[in-house]
Amino acid sequence: MSNLKLVIAMSLDGYVAGPSQSVENPLGIGGEALHEWAFALEAWRAPHGLSGGEVNPSSKVMEDRLASVGATIMGRNMFGGRPGPWSEQEPWNGWWGEDPPFHHPVFVLTHHPREPLVCEGGTTFTFVTDGIESALAQARDAAGDKKISLAGGAEACREYLAAGLVDEMSIDLVPIFLGDGERLFDGLGVGNPKLAHVRTIDAPGVTHLEFARR
Amino acid sequence: MSNLKLVIAMSLDGYVAGPSQSVENPLGIGGEALHEWAFALEAWRAPHGLSGGEVNPSSKVMEDRLASVGATIMGRNMFGGRPGPWSEQEPWNGWWGEDPPFHHPVFVLTHHPREPLVCEGGTTFTFVTDGIESALAQARDAAGDKKISLAGGAEACREYLAAGLVDEMSIDLVPIFLGDGERLFDGLGVGNPKLAHVRTIDAPGVTHLEFARR
Repeated sequence: MSNLKLVIAMSLDGYVAGPSQSVENPLGIGGEALHEWAFALEAWRAPHGLSGGEVNPSSKVMEDRLASVGATIMGRNMFGGRPGPWSEQEPWNGWWGEDPPFHHPVFVLTHHPREPLVCEGGTTFTFVTDGIESALAQARDAAGDKKISLAGGAEACREYLAAGLVDEMSIDLVPIFLGDGERLFDGLGVGNPKLAHVRTIDAPGVTHLEFARR
Repeated sequence: MSNLKLVIAMSLDGYVAGPSQSVENPLGIGGEALHEWAFALEAWRAPHGLSGGEVNPSSKVMEDRLASVGATIMGRNMFGGRPGPWSEQEPWNGWWGEDPPFHHPVFVLTHHPREPLVCEGGTTFTFVTDGIESALAQARDAAGDKKISLAGGAEACREYLAAGLVDEMSIDLVPIFLGDGERLFDGLGVGNPKLAHVRTIDAPGVTHLEFARR
């Protein structure tokens, strides 16, 4: 039991990002629409330094999520930048600016070594080149009693699901169709993932479906 | 506007049937679990001649559905039987016995001609060999003012979705994972299907997501 929780937004046709992801369009064609329900929430806007926003049944979901996480794991594709070795000429420091909204240690899965990136506000990106179990062990040490959030992208999530390392999962199901892109659930095989439904929370623009290890 | 409504149960990983569908296992491995929420309803059991059952928010969804449909379209795979020309030695008359639960005209898409099959209780299966638009025209004539239900399987649904012929869609999203099988939404391409979310009805064991033509 590693306290690893996969949290991701997915379209009804199963995509967690649209096609043609790029530095200019990190979520792919149409992918921004997966997150509109969150961007509209006061519970999301306030910790991101934005005023206003809605209060609805998603608010508590978001608050609980932000409060319970002590470390995050993400794939190289979610951290972003051009594929291959890290460029010293054009350094890529993520999508989130100088004060990323994590405020805790983040572990980035990559094949290419890089020194840790210390940002403002308590976020440090540590680049892990020796696999998903190593990243999980490091994140567990960093998180203490809190949960570890597995945040994306699709490939990183599929690797943890296939390895049976996910303890909890929250799918933010958005009733849109991207038509193409990155699928979350693909090639896992019959009987996988071994997660059972715990509860459903319906809210404007999204249905939160929560699962725990069977 | 043809009044064609796609109604289908889908797992959270996007499958409307499990793998290895056969005459012995028509819904594939694990596929029966997509329909447990319905089998538990009094609103489903009574019209199928069964006693007992639950009343919950799915009841009205099921009642409205049964009352509003005047004709059904299905693919050969849903009607079932061995692929290829219809056998006279081993006649296949569907999964549903002598008094199928439709009680209205059903149009079966097939490449192999066959005389209509008249059953008890008002159900007649008409076998349509000249394509999805012909089946839709015949079903529209048969349905009068009522809706036409597009009931499955995945391939028939995808053909109607790809052709832009679906006016309404109700996805009964079941929070389980089949891991493999027949996908409903596959290969439709960016921006498809052109359906917009109308409402969500959360119920025990299922979330009903309803869409209408954009």
